[in-house]
Order: sequence, then structure tokens, then C-alpha cells
Amino acid sequence: MIASVSLNPALDLTYALPALVPGSSHRVSEVIARAGGKGVNVARVLHRLGAPVLVLGLAGGATGERLEAELTGAGLPARFTRLAAETRRTVTVVAGGSATVLNEPGPPVTGAEWAEFRATFASQVRQARVVVLSGSRPPGVPESAYADLVTVARAAGAEAIVDAEGPALLGALAAGPAVAKPNAEEAAGLLGRPVRTRDDAVAVAHRLVRDGAGAGVVSRGADGFVAVAGGATYHARVPEAVHGNPTGAGDALAAVLAAGLVAGTPWPEVFARAVAVSAAAVACPYAGEYDDAVAARLLPVATVEQL
Amino acid sequence: MIASVSLNPALDLTYALPALVPGSSHRVSEVIARAGGKGVNVARVLHRLGAPVLVLGLAGGATGERLEAELTGAGLPARFTRLAAETRRTVTVVAGGSATVLNEPGPPVTGAEWAEFRATFASQVRQARVVVLSGSRPPGVPESAYADLVTVARAAGAEAIVDAEGPALLGALAAGPAVAKPNAEEAAGLLGRPVRTRDDAVAVAHRLVRDGAGAGVVSRGADGFVAVAGGATYHARVPEAVHGNPTGAGDALAAVLAAGLVAGTPWPEVFARAVAVSAAAVACPYAGEYDDAVAARLLPVATVEQL
Repeated sequence: MIASVSLNPALDLTYALPALVPGSSHRVSEVIARAGGKGVNVARVLHRLGAPVLVLGLAGGATGERLEAELTGAGLPARFTRLAAETRRTVTVVAGGSATVLNEPGPPVTGAEWAEFRATFASQVRQARVVVLSGSRPPGVPESAYADLVTVARAAGAEAIVDAEGPALLGALAAGPAVAKPNAEEAAGLLGRPVRTRDDAVAVAHRLVRDGAGAGVVSRGADGFVAVAGGATYHARVPEAVHGNPTGAGDALAAVLAAGLVAGTPWPEVFARAVAVSAAAVACPYAGEYDDAVAARLLPVATVEQL
Repeated sequence: MIASVSLNPALDLTYALPALVPGSSHRVSEVIARAGGKGVNVARVLHRLGAPVLVLGLAGGATGERLEAELTGAGLPARFTRLAAETRRTVTVVAGGSATVLNEPGPPVTGAEWAEFRATFASQVRQARVVVLSGSRPPGVPESAYADLVTVARAAGAEAIVDAEGPALLGALAAGPAVAKPNAEEAAGLLGRPVRTRDDAVAVAHRLVRDGAGAGVVSRGADGFVAVAGGATYHARVPEAVHGNPTGAGDALAAVLAAGLVAGTPWPEVFARAVAVSAAAVACPYAGEYDDAVAARLLPVATVEQL
């Protein structure tokens, strides 16, 4: 089983409009409401890949109940620690080919609620082979949370994949995750400047490994990702630009890495599949999904070049 | 007791932002979530006026539960018929002094759910002196709903105030409500052209009475309202323009009319209070509230001119 941790999930509302006109009133004809957040997206992709997965997270209020019901309806097992505060929403207005996003702040988490989550995590992680830790922390969850959870996971015999940024990422590296997987933007903090070139990304991937990760993966949008793993450096990419919604592409990548870790698949093979599924996720309007046909078309032509 | 009917209530979410930039992502720092919809706003104002009030409506899903909990927390008794479908939301982005509104569609209502609401209404209305029927109908609720509810209310000895538009308003008039109270925009359908001048509004108010209402009130924004009641025609207004959020001003007006009907207060006195409280509602950022100080300042200077 793979446990996907979602500390700050959201109920994602998508409104499709002919146009968004600031200062005016709009009649929304159709509403899509889905459970979201990076950890939830990772779990959705793992579920579609056929991997047994459990979502562990924090949820509160009627929005939290709605989110849990939506996950259950999608066939995704989840165990949420209940919060007194209300789970956040995100609103995405899709109009004229562009998306306007409104992200609510996460709910405040009390010390007792965090301790309860930590205890649930420690108990559930014993059944897990791999734990994926991704996304933001709501207020009240300590900056050291991911480092702490990596340590708990490893003590229980599970491997960890961390997709985070800033001090949360740095702290987690020291705890020794199997994989650290920031995107180029998130990785800029480690380089001390924007990650612009492939060499920049390779430098960050090396840094991730030097600081404690078993493997370092840095994604670069349409240019795929670079990885340092098993003493080698790789560049994985697909030979065509996929247009659509890039939100969730990094989560699809994390999901394939987790599935590869569980299966013990050699890294180059995992990376080819990861870059194909991640690009196929861009072809889907909703984060947490990928287009099967696009993935099937891209997998044979994905390249994993050893640098 | 006054029963305020809210067939299509909403959970109103308000996001305050420095700016709304279409096509980009926004971090919302604070979320206000309130129960809304015209019937709910009317009930809030009645509650603040000290009148015993009961909200009767339709609500479903986690959003419906959240809405009920919010009303209970505000001290407003409510009895909602449960729907299988989810109650709608509205999202208002307040940025740079203007409001961008996104209105979700109402939840579909089944025939059985509507029959259940109707039975609850018929039972509860026996304790009511006045019933306020205002706002839109969700899909599945018949166009004749307000006409039907006016008839049921009158048979039980309660008077009805109707704030509606189009065929729903026309149908309700024939059932003989004590007051019909559209705004100028809603009244345009009855005149067959835009209600531009005071004379236009007076013509519509007469038409409301001729078609079956005991009194006709047509509100005209900053110019107050005109009314035909007890064989006389009135123009009620305040001598200053109040700036703010006009949403809910008409609901405040309906609430004061309902309280006046229950108390048996003479119309000119009710109208003075109604125009003052309605203008004071504009001074409040949230529909369903009014500014006490503004109401107290405007009440002595409000004029009710007999035309």
C-alpha cells in the first residue's frame, strides 16, 4: 500500500464561463466540485495506475465531509483526522482559454489535532511500502512536519517521497527520503537563484542527493525532468509539447515514482513511464487525472537520456 | 411569527482581494461564509428588528448543512426540507471597490421534495401572521409555486408579501397577496418596457394592485420606492445617497413591510421606516444586515410624500 499524505486538501470548484468580467455578475451554468490538493491528486493517479493507496490527511467542517464523500465516491480509501476548522476551497474560473484561480487559506490546526494526525500516520504507515508527502501545510502544522513524518515512515520500514519547497524540503532531506521531487520553481530556493537551464536543474538534483535524498528529481514543465539516482544523472522527456492544464503534472510524476519504488522497477524504466504519464496529465482538464491515450502514445517515444 | 421562504438559498462566500486579475492565481487571505439568498436576508433583517421569524426552505448536501449551521449560529430558527442535490454557492470577489459575482445554479428539486416542502409550509404557516415569499426558484419547483403558497397561506389566515418577477409574480398576484414588492428592474416585465421614471413605477404599482395585490411597492434604488396602498399613492425616500452594497436593500424593505403588517402600523409610518432601513442596508457590506446608526439618522429625515 502507498500512503499519500494531504495535510491541506481542498474542495476544488471549477466554473466554466464564456468570459470573466471583473465588476459584474455571472451566472454559472455548471459546477464541478472535486477533492483536490497535491496529496489527493497523487492518490488519484496511483488509483488509476492500479496501485493500492490510502489518503491520510486533515479535514474539517461540512467542506471536509464533502471532500471525504467525493473521495469515497471515486473509490479512494481515505482516513482524515477531523479538524474543528473548515477545510478550504479553491475556485477556478475557466473562461476564454485561461484559468483564474482563487485559493482559500488552509484551516488552522491545533496542537492536539496535529498530534492526533501524527499518531494515525504512525499507525497506518506500518502497512505502507511507500509514503508520498506533498503540498502545503495549513497554519499550525510545524515546518518540521515532513522531516518528522519521513523519520516515522522510515522507522516503520516505509520509503518516503517528498514534494515540497523551502525549509520544509530542506528539513525533510536530512531525514533521508528515498526521493525528493520539487519542480524547478520550488527548487530555486536550494540553488539560491532561478532554475533556468538544464544544468541548473541537474545542480539542484545533485544537491538534493547530497543533502540526504536517495534520488533527486527536478521537473521542468514541457522539458520533462532531470534526475540523479543510483549514481547516474538522467534527462527524461517526451518529443512533443502537450497543451492543457499543467496543474497536477507534478503529482502524476510523484505517483509514478511511488509505484516504481513499490515495484522495484529500474529507475530508467520508471522515469520513462513517469514523464509520459506526467505529460498525459497535462492533456486532462482536471488535476489527478491523465489521458490514457496520450500516455499510451507517449510511452514508446519518451526518452531517458543518461547525462 | 413571520415565515420567510427561501426556496433557493445559497452559501455566500466573499473573498476580499487587492485586485482580481483574470488568468492568474490569487491567494485569498480571508473568507467570509454566510447563509444567503433573498429569503434568508429578509429573515436576518426581521431578526434584527426583533420580530419572531422562521426560515422555511430547501437545502441539500454538505453545503446545505453548512448553511443551516450558519443560520442556527446567527440565532435564526430554520426548517429546511432536505434535498438530495447540493445547495448552491455564490462567490463574490471584492477588489478595488467593485464586486465580481459568480452565482452557481440552484440544485434540482424532485416532485417528491417539492411536495414535502409544500406540506411543511402548510403546517408551519398556521403559526404565521405573515409569510414573505422572495427570490428565485431552483429547477424543478413549478412556476406556480408562489401563487400556490400565497393561496395556502391565505387559507391558513396568514398574509403574504411577494418579491418576485415575471410569470411567478403575475401568477402570485392573482392569488391575492397583501403586498407585491418587485424592484424597478423586476417590474419592467409588467410594464412591457423599462421602468425609468417615477411615473413608470407608479403605473406598475397600480397594476400590481389592479391584478390582485393589497398593496404594490416598486423600489427604485437611491430614489427610494413608490407604493400604492389603501387607495393612496406614495413616494418614500431619504434625502441622501448612501454608498455601499445595494444587494439586500430590497430584502430589508420587504422585512420592514412584513413587520409593519404584523404590527398593524399605518402605511405611511411603515414606509418611512422601510425606506430608512433599506438605505441603511446599503451601508452594510453584507446583505441581510443594516447599519443601526445610519437607520437612526435617516428615519427622522425620511419623507413619505402622498402623490
